[in-house]
Amino acid sequence: MAYTPVAYDPYDFANRRHIGPSPAEMEEMLATLGVDSLDALIDQTVPDTIRQARPLDWAPLAEHELLARMRSVAGRNRVMTSLIGQGYYGTVTPPAIQRNILENPAWYTAYTPYQPEIAQGRLEALLNYQTMVADLTGLPVANASLLDEATACAEAMVMAQRVAKSKAGAFFVDENCHPQNIAVMQTRAEPLGIEIIVGAPEALVPAQVFGAIFQYPGTHGHLRDFSDTIGALHQAQAIAVMATDLLALTMLREPGAMGADIAVGSSQRFGVPLGFGGPHAAFMSCRDEMKRAMPGRIVGVSVDARGERAYRLALQTREQHIRREKATSNVCTAQALLAVMASFYAVFHGPKGLRAIAERVHFNTARLAAALREAGAEVEPAAFFDTITVRVGVGQAGILAAAEQRGINLRRVGRDRVGISLDETTDADVIARVLSAFGISEPAPETVDAAFPDALIRDSDYLTHPVFHMNRAESEMMRYMRRLSDRDLALDRAMIPLGSCTMKLNAAAEMMPITWPEFSTLHPFAPADQVAGYAEVIADLSARLCEITGYDAFSMQPNSGAQGEYAGLLTIRAWHRSRGDDQRDICLIPVSAHGTNPASAQMCGMKVVPVKSAANGDIDLVDFRARAEAAGDRLAACMITYPSTHGVFEETVSEVCRITHQFGGQVYLDGANMNAMVGLSRPGDIGADVSHLNLHKTFAIPHGGGGPGMGPIGVKAHLAPYLPGHPMAPAAEGPVSAAPYGSASILLISWAYCLMMGGAGLTQATKVAILNANYIARQLEGAYDVLFRGKQGRVAHECILDTRPFAAAGITVDDIAKRLIDNGFHAPTMSWPVAGTLMVEPTESETKAELDRFVTALLSIREEIADVEAGRIDAANNPLKHAPHTVQDLVADWDRPYCREQGCFPPGAFRVDKYWPPVGRVDNAHGDRNLICTCPPMEEYAAAAE
Amino acid sequence: MAYTPVAYDPYDFANRRHIGPSPAEMEEMLATLGVDSLDALIDQTVPDTIRQARPLDWAPLAEHELLARMRSVAGRNRVMTSLIGQGYYGTVTPPAIQRNILENPAWYTAYTPYQPEIAQGRLEALLNYQTMVADLTGLPVANASLLDEATACAEAMVMAQRVAKSKAGAFFVDENCHPQNIAVMQTRAEPLGIEIIVGAPEALVPAQVFGAIFQYPGTHGHLRDFSDTIGALHQAQAIAVMATDLLALTMLREPGAMGADIAVGSSQRFGVPLGFGGPHAAFMSCRDEMKRAMPGRIVGVSVDARGERAYRLALQTREQHIRREKATSNVCTAQALLAVMASFYAVFHGPKGLRAIAERVHFNTARLAAALREAGAEVEPAAFFDTITVRVGVGQAGILAAAEQRGINLRRVGRDRVGISLDETTDADVIARVLSAFGISEPAPETVDAAFPDALIRDSDYLTHPVFHMNRAESEMMRYMRRLSDRDLALDRAMIPLGSCTMKLNAAAEMMPITWPEFSTLHPFAPADQVAGYAEVIADLSARLCEITGYDAFSMQPNSGAQGEYAGLLTIRAWHRSRGDDQRDICLIPVSAHGTNPASAQMCGMKVVPVKSAANGDIDLVDFRARAEAAGDRLAACMITYPSTHGVFEETVSEVCRITHQFGGQVYLDGANMNAMVGLSRPGDIGADVSHLNLHKTFAIPHGGGGPGMGPIGVKAHLAPYLPGHPMAPAAEGPVSAAPYGSASILLISWAYCLMMGGAGLTQATKVAILNANYIARQLEGAYDVLFRGKQGRVAHECILDTRPFAAAGITVDDIAKRLIDNGFHAPTMSWPVAGTLMVEPTESETKAELDRFVTALLSIREEIADVEAGRIDAANNPLKHAPHTVQDLVADWDRPYCREQGCFPPGAFRVDKYWPPVGRVDNAHGDRNLICTCPPMEEYAAAAE
Repeated sequence: MAYTPVAYDPYDFANRRHIGPSPAEMEEMLATLGVDSLDALIDQTVPDTIRQARPLDWAPLAEHELLARMRSVAGRNRVMTSLIGQGYYGTVTPPAIQRNILENPAWYTAYTPYQPEIAQGRLEALLNYQTMVADLTGLPVANASLLDEATACAEAMVMAQRVAKSKAGAFFVDENCHPQNIAVMQTRAEPLGIEIIVGAPEALVPAQVFGAIFQYPGTHGHLRDFSDTIGALHQAQAIAVMATDLLALTMLREPGAMGADIAVGSSQRFGVPLGFGGPHAAFMSCRDEMKRAMPGRIVGVSVDARGERAYRLALQTREQHIRREKATSNVCTAQALLAVMASFYAVFHGPKGLRAIAERVHFNTARLAAALREAGAEVEPAAFFDTITVRVGVGQAGILAAAEQRGINLRRVGRDRVGISLDETTDADVIARVLSAFGISEPAPETVDAAFPDALIRDSDYLTHPVFHMNRAESEMMRYMRRLSDRDLALDRAMIPLGSCTMKLNAAAEMMPITWPEFSTLHPFAPADQVAGYAEVIADLSARLCEITGYDAFSMQPNSGAQGEYAGLLTIRAWHRSRGDDQRDICLIPVSAHGTNPASAQMCGMKVVPVKSAANGDIDLVDFRARAEAAGDRLAACMITYPSTHGVFEETVSEVCRITHQFGGQVYLDGANMNAMVGLSRPGDIGADVSHLNLHKTFAIPHGGGGPGMGPIGVKAHLAPYLPGHPMAPAAEGPVSAAPYGSASILLISWAYCLMMGGAGLTQATKVAILNANYIARQLEGAYDVLFRGKQGRVAHECILDTRPFAAAGITVDDIAKRLIDNGFHAPTMSWPVAGTLMVEPTESETKAELDRFVTALLSIREEIADVEAGRIDAANNPLKHAPHTVQDLVADWDRPYCREQGCFPPGAFRVDKYWPPVGRVDNAHGDRNLICTCPPMEEYAAAAE
Repeated sequence: MAYTPVAYDPYDFANRRHIGPSPAEMEEMLATLGVDSLDALIDQTVPDTIRQARPLDWAPLAEHELLARMRSVAGRNRVMTSLIGQGYYGTVTPPAIQRNILENPAWYTAYTPYQPEIAQGRLEALLNYQTMVADLTGLPVANASLLDEATACAEAMVMAQRVAKSKAGAFFVDENCHPQNIAVMQTRAEPLGIEIIVGAPEALVPAQVFGAIFQYPGTHGHLRDFSDTIGALHQAQAIAVMATDLLALTMLREPGAMGADIAVGSSQRFGVPLGFGGPHAAFMSCRDEMKRAMPGRIVGVSVDARGERAYRLALQTREQHIRREKATSNVCTAQALLAVMASFYAVFHGPKGLRAIAERVHFNTARLAAALREAGAEVEPAAFFDTITVRVGVGQAGILAAAEQRGINLRRVGRDRVGISLDETTDADVIARVLSAFGISEPAPETVDAAFPDALIRDSDYLTHPVFHMNRAESEMMRYMRRLSDRDLALDRAMIPLGSCTMKLNAAAEMMPITWPEFSTLHPFAPADQVAGYAEVIADLSARLCEITGYDAFSMQPNSGAQGEYAGLLTIRAWHRSRGDDQRDICLIPVSAHGTNPASAQMCGMKVVPVKSAANGDIDLVDFRARAEAAGDRLAACMITYPSTHGVFEETVSEVCRITHQFGGQVYLDGANMNAMVGLSRPGDIGADVSHLNLHKTFAIPHGGGGPGMGPIGVKAHLAPYLPGHPMAPAAEGPVSAAPYGSASILLISWAYCLMMGGAGLTQATKVAILNANYIARQLEGAYDVLFRGKQGRVAHECILDTRPFAAAGITVDDIAKRLIDNGFHAPTMSWPVAGTLMVEPTESETKAELDRFVTALLSIREEIADVEAGRIDAANNPLKHAPHTVQDLVADWDRPYCREQGCFPPGAFRVDKYWPPVGRVDNAHGDRNLICTCPPMEEYAAAAE
């Protein structure tokens, strides 16, 4: 038979979909680099001494095989109605928000809005979020979200300590706080020497504390007026924090009105799926005078070069990566995508709609309580919003089982009570099933009174800004979402070459399962037998991550890389203490480390000792040894990043580990750069004891415009017993996050990535990430100096371009970054880890064509710089200084020494498909001088009263 | 208790999401119109005499309730592996295509690309489709898709009759054609007097026929070389049509190489879900000299005002709504969205990938055949691609049942055979299960030879254009899809005020279920007990449509409005014939009717007699009566549109029906304008006997950039026995579509719409559609004359603006349409039903703000016209003549008598969020003079060989 089959796998996800350069392109690129093969390049780049012995070897799945596997796993989860509450509630995600935000790459592939000119859409959505939080809590300044409610409580605690005039050493925690909130605060407090006093609000002695936190409504439903208590706290110069619920605040007196200084909570129930624990956006708001102490990102209002309104991140000097070991928090990310969803939920419903939803929830709860009481049940409390507790005595197990039989999860409270929290999704059928579980067949009464005292009825307005009064027809909402996303430049339009951020492909197949009900509707505290699918995902992903890293155990709890650092150091600390080494409190950190490293160490009560860099950028081994020796038996740990933040595989890494261990310390290897290691080298083999992995960098979770993230930690066996525990499954150590598995639903993305790539695909991705970086470095030679290379002249997966030589001509790294916008690119990482540089990380997902387009752009910029250097164009009036160029520039009179064409269509820019930034260069200083962190009046919103 | 609940339903889909104007806006609009209430306006608009007695009264569902209901219905369908074949095959929809095309409103809410400047993205995708079809079939000209394979066969038949030099009266149909193809051709042939001869190819007598069609591969798998047969046909001056399979053609000799004149088939298996029958895109290609006879849309290449390449629909004078009763086809739409998906599937895989997929399918089939033969089974044919037939004798039922037990549907062939068609999704497990159903436990052999002769091996290239050789990394593919969609203006960015097209909201919740596997993976010929969910949807939707229309039965078969007309007239024809009234062949059609009306009548063998319009635009009753009288007992039907295509509720409609019935005719009421009737008036009550409904207009199915559509017909009880049947469930009448329920999966959208709106919501939508149209008409008074109004001065749901008075100043309707692009709007319907007019239909989904923006745009255009009229600006050099303005205009030198600002930012245009057309005004004549219907060389594609 004459027919000759082709050798080609059309379903090869790793090589045909995920990895950018085609085989032919790779040949060209290798030729450019003067090496014979990809493996030869890797041999020149990754030191022999650290290469892993055994390749990753699991077989890959095609996209449709992955989805079939996912459906099978999904079938092992049971979709129930969870009335467990405790900070997690059923919610209705408006389908238009699900489709147009959560499932839309224009939103989910965006990066943190550090470049405001290309992020005006999500900055507006986040400003809406801040306005919503500020209005509902009654406190004027809100941030753009935090990781979860429990960590927000802990952040509020340390913020309170920082701003309180009281010098008392204790922090009071209302016993009505959710258990996970209490536990995370305890974890956080202990290394810092903060004493936590848990008790009933009546037991609070203001003089003993620098602050206190109250849950409102309480975890078992209680509503109290904290005004007097807060007054007493203020008299003692202590700070009052309230953990609260945004939906309840549409009906109830707001924290600001009770005098609270800080409010925190979760915005999950504003349309964000439960997802077995997350991701969700926590919020924080505070009084104006405390805003500079507030952790997290704050969006503010400023102006652009033409004086037009423009949004940008405000007060960035507060950020933890700047403050390093002086930081009181290591938070440097947010839950942007989820905050955006919650803000749109508020826009969709407006104040009247939110209030109606709250009323539905509240009156259903009141009806349920009335029916239970009518039947003789003992129902607490008298005043509640959405949660009641029923004393059932020895009948507890029976009631819980009867409810479960009816498809409902109630909360087990103590040994003799059950808790019931209703939500937006509760309908008459759910109420009837709950009553039936109690043996009650009578229907709940149709009308009841509100179950809270007059003093707690809210009497102030909220969400008065026009954006919350837009016409809410779906056509209009869809267009508003589209307009905002069109203002932004995300990975769905162009490469985002951000050093250290690994902006790789987030494949559609990886994203699909997260919105399936079997994954999205599960409560994080649902009974174990209902979540077998998730358990399988977590176990299998952990096993693969162990194989990838050489570690023996993983904790999926940390919700961000920085949280991972913190959790890892806590684990090290617990291990030392288990051995009686309580004195070990010194952490060695190279000066080139990411700022979260020292901040995390500080949070664990460690003293940070910086270690110098050698001239070539490596850790200075002499200094390192000297510092370790000096620390002696106080050495707790060292924190290193590998490959280094300079983008180099340091040959000395094993020696660093050896020295650390020699002095009794543990090695924390920051996994931020794991995309240069997967399949080639394992931290656990090199000598590290613990690492976090940034699943949102290396393992394909999208950045979401600034969150979500996931930072699980892997540890060697001896540390495994000291990993974070959780109140829902108590362990030796306390939790670091609200949910046992952090933002569990997005683990599906990383799992899908691992399954579809297979072992060989993951390894190939690493190699190509290194190829792409070296290709860029080579193509820019002669135009830009690449700082730091390995022994054989290769960079790892990223390279640092030195722009300091252009300072003489007045050209800054900012000018280059903004000019790249004209070329249609997001800027590389700016001035980190070295001021005046650009760090470029292309990732494996970019094609040669896109790399070439980027190189073209940078080379043309270099020529423009040369024109300035040579005096051929005015140093203050040139395309670099006027960048980015907008349509307004084109329409307006043009009096510049270069033409419109040159200004707007530099080499590399698309002609027909050009991205136009909606604003010109944003004036950051102006915004910080005139801080506005809630929505300014906007005439363009079409107000339409209901 | 002091708490006062708000009265507000946040989940009220109809009033808060679907209907544009808020209650407050409606008040303002009614005040503008000088009426007290919406009902008062309706009383002035809709004649008393036709109002329906009983309101629609079913309760609405909220979005989350709808989705819960949908999940429950989905659970009643059984997801099986269907190896039934017969033109429908399992396929893997690439997740990135599903997410970024099928689930993306930027693609699915677009309109037919009649305005090419705002449709360059989908025009490019459709040109890719045409290129793919032309290449694979080996015929140079392809259209941009047809409704389904069976109707494409019928279209090919009548096209063959039109172009053949042979004057023979018969058409030969290969007995190996799929049964539904044969049946639809028979349906089509009979009224036209074409004799269909079904037989084996060997039995063909060329001199007897004007053409012949062969299925390749045949329905039972046979492969033949038709070269000689085609040669003989050509000798007899007859036309050869081949119904074929694109996937098979990647391996097999193509129709063009065998001498075929026309090729047709389905592109479903190129990534388009089965969806229980559709929607899918059928294709047609032909020899160059026949292109002007080809039905359907053809995308071609032309240039814009700057001479830049631009795409647009070519040869539009061929379209059936122009040719009216002289048309040989009524096809005036396509399956654009599905053709776009199929074209991207080809781009995703490229020729090598497609070939690999075909080989996988083929060699799996050969392995299966070998294993069956090895076990002693009698397997036919010897040469096959993906389909084999096994002679099983009396064991047929047992084998089918055994397969079904194993999750597999085989095809029942005759009484003693089963058919097995493999596809892209077939894996080793499926093969093992099939063998197991035959009692074979031996595995299939690993290697086999290809099962077709050398003469049938394809030896020509295909998909050589660079677009099929792009780097196929998902990052690049995602960006290509995004770039194309960004070039287009769809409903997700602005109102599309297209008269007669009802571009209403397509809500996200309505779209979600169509991609659930329980709906998307079902074969249209799956056993009834596996499709109970679909049966429920179809029955319930039919019942609601009956209630809405006053009809007694519905057929869901027609895939478009025009197909509905055809099916409805066929039903009337069959009824007449059942009564012995074979002579009734005259159809009265007002001159204002849509061109498909006469074309459809012609297809049913009816003679079209036009009826005049009176001066006020109504049907001229005197003329109507005269024509009816003249027809006498030859009167078959009249076709009317209500409200009329003039946008008016004619008071005379009942009289028209009465006269028609008086002379023994039946009334076909075209449902194109049902959006002005739902809940207010029922065709079945007025006197009509049959109507089609455009579910893609009135019932929320998106237009998809030019298809899909659904045009089910409702009939009074006496016509019900004469509705279309289907070979899979034989009935008195033949089928009009390939699948029994047409494009079944998108019925879910209309069902969802009906359920969420509820009876009252649907009625309110109708009223607000009328309000919105009257508001626009009022706001434009003084600037534009509104042609045609009802007795009390009101228009129905649309209004016709007269632009003929501007002709004196040289301003055409085209100039206004193109200028509206600068304002950020799609133009209204142009020059239909009256030349030199614009027909505006806002629908109920648009907010007052959007209507006002549109009014502002049209008023500013009127002022610009006035400037020309008054000689204040040059008649050839003004913003109207240069419209639309592009970024290139801004960048280039500007030597116009108006400024850039005025040119690009006319009133109504968004400033920051402005839509920029990628090309200037397109030169249609140039394109038709220089017809290019496949992709031209495109340097900008980054070629990357695998």
